[in-house]
Formats: sequence, C-alpha cells, structure tokens
Amino acid sequence: MVDKVLIREVGTREGFQFEPPGIPTARKVELIDALAGTGVRRIQTVSFVSPRSIPQMSDAEDVIAGLHPNRDVAYQALWFNVRGLRRAQDFGFLTMVGSVSLSASSKFAARNWGSPDRALSALNEPLIEEYVRLKLPVAISVAAAFGCNFEGRVDEGTVITLLGDTLTQLDERGLEVIEITLSDTMAWASPQSIKRLCDAVRTRFPDLPVSLHLHDTRGLGIANAMAALEVGIDRFDSAIAGLGGCPYAGHRGAAGNIATEDFVLLCHELGIETGIDPVRLLAAAALAEEVVGHPGSSRSLRGGHLTDTGVLNIDLPQDTGA
Amino acid sequence: MVDKVLIREVGTREGFQFEPPGIPTARKVELIDALAGTGVRRIQTVSFVSPRSIPQMSDAEDVIAGLHPNRDVAYQALWFNVRGLRRAQDFGFLTMVGSVSLSASSKFAARNWGSPDRALSALNEPLIEEYVRLKLPVAISVAAAFGCNFEGRVDEGTVITLLGDTLTQLDERGLEVIEITLSDTMAWASPQSIKRLCDAVRTRFPDLPVSLHLHDTRGLGIANAMAALEVGIDRFDSAIAGLGGCPYAGHRGAAGNIATEDFVLLCHELGIETGIDPVRLLAAAALAEEVVGHPGSSRSLRGGHLTDTGVLNIDLPQDTGA
Repeated sequence: MVDKVLIREVGTREGFQFEPPGIPTARKVELIDALAGTGVRRIQTVSFVSPRSIPQMSDAEDVIAGLHPNRDVAYQALWFNVRGLRRAQDFGFLTMVGSVSLSASSKFAARNWGSPDRALSALNEPLIEEYVRLKLPVAISVAAAFGCNFEGRVDEGTVITLLGDTLTQLDERGLEVIEITLSDTMAWASPQSIKRLCDAVRTRFPDLPVSLHLHDTRGLGIANAMAALEVGIDRFDSAIAGLGGCPYAGHRGAAGNIATEDFVLLCHELGIETGIDPVRLLAAAALAEEVVGHPGSSRSLRGGHLTDTGVLNIDLPQDTGA
Repeated sequence: MVDKVLIREVGTREGFQFEPPGIPTARKVELIDALAGTGVRRIQTVSFVSPRSIPQMSDAEDVIAGLHPNRDVAYQALWFNVRGLRRAQDFGFLTMVGSVSLSASSKFAARNWGSPDRALSALNEPLIEEYVRLKLPVAISVAAAFGCNFEGRVDEGTVITLLGDTLTQLDERGLEVIEITLSDTMAWASPQSIKRLCDAVRTRFPDLPVSLHLHDTRGLGIANAMAALEVGIDRFDSAIAGLGGCPYAGHRGAAGNIATEDFVLLCHELGIETGIDPVRLLAAAALAEEVVGHPGSSRSLRGGHLTDTGVLNIDLPQDTGA
C-alpha cells in the first residue's frame, strides 16, 4: 500500500464538458481557485478544443486568464491538436505537458475522435512535431483501457502492445514520456482487472509512473481505486462532486468520475497522505454543485468525512439533522 | 476470496422506512414479488413495529398477506419486542429467526431504541423468553459496529466483548445463534477496519457465520464489501436501488445501503456466484425507484451491468443515447 498519493482534479475540464453549456466564466474561475486552495497539487483546468464540438469550453482562455495562480498547484490543460496547443501556450503559468491520447478500442476512438486509429496516427503527427520542437515532456493517456461499451472487454495484451509501440515511436523522436494514464472511460474495470493491468504495465515499463482515471458509472470506482492503492499506484484523476462522465460513452445520466472528496476520504481513512484539507474540499464540492446547479454523484459531500472525534460535516448542502 | 455469496435484500424494510409514509401496499407487494423473482435467496420484507414510531410499516400484515411466496426464498421480518414477534408468527411462510439487536455505541442505542444499553438488557428479556419457549434459532445484529456519529470510532475489542457476553448469555438459555451481522450503520468502516473486525470476530467465534450490513453514506460501501470478500465473508445485506439509510443516524439526504445491483455487479465481475439474474435485478431496481418516486443511490442501474459481449442495459430508466 502506498503512503501518499498525487491527485489530479479534473472536474472543471471533464465535469464541465458534460454539463449543458452556459456556466458563467466567473463561476468556473471561482471553483478552480477554490480547488487550488484545498491543497490539491494538480488541476486539469480546461480543454482547448473547438467551440463547435464542445461549446462548454469556448471560454477556456477567459477562464485561465481569470485565475489567481497558486504556486503550489500545477495547472494543466488538455488539447487534441496544434491549434489547441498554441492556445494553451499563451498562458505562462500553465504546466505544459504534451498530451498523447490513445484508445484501446478503435470503435471508441472513432466515436470520440472521428478516427478508428487506436495508436499514434497521421492525425497526431503535427502535434508530435510540435512537442519535439518545444522539447515538451509527454504524458500518454489510454482511453477505454479496461473495456468499451461498443467493443467489449479489453485484454491487457492490447494495452501493453499499444503502449510499447507508442513509447518506441516517441523515443525515436527523442521525446521523454513522464506518465501513463490508464483510463477506465466507460467503467469496465473491476478490482481484479485493475490489479492485472497495473501489474502488467509496471512490469513491462517499470520506469514510468502509472496514473489511473476511474469512472464510477457502475458503482465500482472507489473499490477499483482501493485495488490500485493496494498494488502501489499513487497517481489518480478524480472530479470534485463526482462530476463528469464521457459524452461519447452512451452513458448520459450515469455517475461520473470518482468524486475527489470520496477518494480523499478513502485515502485519509487508510492513513494515506493526499495533502488535501477535507474541510476545504467539502466546501469546494458544495460550490461545484452550486455552480452546475444540480447534485453530483458524491457520497461524502452528504455523508461527511470522518475525524478522530466525529463527523466532519461542515456546511453540508442538505439537512443532516436526525 | 469466496466463490459464492448469500445476499439478503433489505430494501423494502430498511429502504421503505426511510421514505415518507404512503407507499401503497400493493406496490410494496409488487416489488417484493419482483425481488423474489430475481434469484435472491433472502428478503427482509417488513418490520413489525409500532405504527406510531414507524408509520411506513403500519401495513406490514397486509404486505405479507399479499405476497406470492416463492419457495426458493427465505422471507424474513424484523421486530424489537414480543408484540412484533407475535404479529410475525401469524404468517407461516416467514422464516422465523429470533433477532437480537445490540449496539456497539450506547449513544446510538439511546437514539435508536430509547435506552443506552448496548448489550442484552431487561428490555430484551421478554423477547428472549419467547425465543426459548419457541426454540427459535437466533441471529445477532450489532449496530454501529465500526463507529458512531455520536460516539466516534468503535474499536474491535468493544465488539468482541459485547458479542462474547451476549453469546454466553444466550448459550446459558439454551439458544442457538446461527449468524452474527456486523452493521456499519453510520458508515464509519474502511476496507482496513472491515478486514480487522471481520478477522477478529471470526478468530474469536470461528463457528459462527458473519454477515455484513454496509451503508454507502460516505462512498466506501462497495470498497468495504470488496475488502470483506477478500477475507472470506460470504453473507451480505444490500438494498435494491441503494434505498435506505438509518433514520436515527443524522444522515438524511445521504446515500443508503449498498445497492444490491452494484454489489451483484461487483460479485459477477469477480466471478463470484450470487444466484441472481442481473436482467431481472436491474428491472426490479427500476421498479423500486418508480415505487418510491425518486432515484435511489444505485450506480449500475444507470450505468448498466456488463456481459462478455457488451453492456447489459435493459430498460434503463434514463436516456442512454450517446
């Protein structure tokens, strides 16, 4: 079991893109600033994508420009093409890591990106050239790493081959890969498949930090996170208030990413350090629900965290009286 | 890891008592009959309690009388005094097991039962006498076995002492104890404390089957169930659609019991037999939400179960289109 974890908050990126457009820019800024004050070390703030495809992110520049950067936080952004990368480059305080997005399912790739290529393809080439030119470190993300609603279960061998090929290609270009994120985009993972894939990836690529991006769509998210902690995974994505989900997964109405506050509760109960203040985190979760205008899929926001002396139920948004 | 589990469905007892009064008797009957058709082996149907304390159970006789008993199902009921036991005795097809309710927290006992006695007390004596007279087997349930919102964390020693004293007293009366249920009434358990307490209880009382009653109030319910499966626990309570919660826990608005369909998904993904048909179970969960008139805290009801070929999303109550 690990003794501390590095959490990346993705609620304002993945969460907001799952909401109807129209959240005011000022409220997005307010929430990211609140999150930065919780002690979380990494925030995936926005994605720089086409406002036609994802209108929810059309104010990405204004959101970033409005932030009050906290020097203890790595503010990240996501993009899928050179145009998006250029937009991110305008902001000096963003932590620039070249994102390389793969999919273990070609059917999911086709729905999500309009191309059935699972691996690096001609589509990625201009972006790779930019990473080389800018000497950016690279983080690889594998979507549908455990299974796909359109293609079924994904075996470990598929992911290992995909990663091996990609790492070879990136290495040939002189790029340094600093992290692999395995994404359970459509919630096909179980505690056992989490352990199998994490073990397989780390055995094959022992020098690369592995991060998990888990969804709670079928209720196994926190159990899967627990399984990952048990095999030594110490990097996780999660979303405040359990916002999020994948717009291309065919799961509208289902639970989203694992809730940051539920995962932090798990870690703290296990004695694992997160660096996060639970009082501020629950307050940020309440703010997140206020900003999106509906309850998320968090449990501990309503149930409260635990302390040695009792229940931490600060400003819970619902009646907690007996 | 166990290879099969025995699930007791508690949604119509614990779940309905958490809802506002007024659910029509016929709908309660319809849901219990639907649950009986899923393959679940045990159903805690109703509680025979004072209609003044719990008006939601005032039609308990009519519910039981309306059922179409399935011979593969053990229909159980709950009571806390001789009057309730007598009411249950009117129905020959109920599986009669003498319930003995303890609390690891005296503050919770005071709120829940109006007496701060954690252990067997004068209050229980008339009931115990009846169990002796009727030669009923006895099941012990320990509320707040992991912690209490009003008293804080509960250590394993407290539970072991409480159980040891109770077992001695029951043995002296010639009563046979057939099961111990450890209830995480207010969701203080973590995967580690689950393993610690289950191990301690089974080490001290190796001949007694241990069952767990888990709440998902803080989001750790399914991770806690996973931990229990890992240490060999094979009996669980759960509630269809994640209904339920404890009216005396000060947690109104929070998630309830672990959802039967989420737990069954976990088991099936781990290759653990439940005897339950997931198609019928998800249909029963959709019915349960219809009967109570609002969404429960289930995940897989909206996310769908998994099969070898794809996602099992029969009649999901929400739009699942991409």
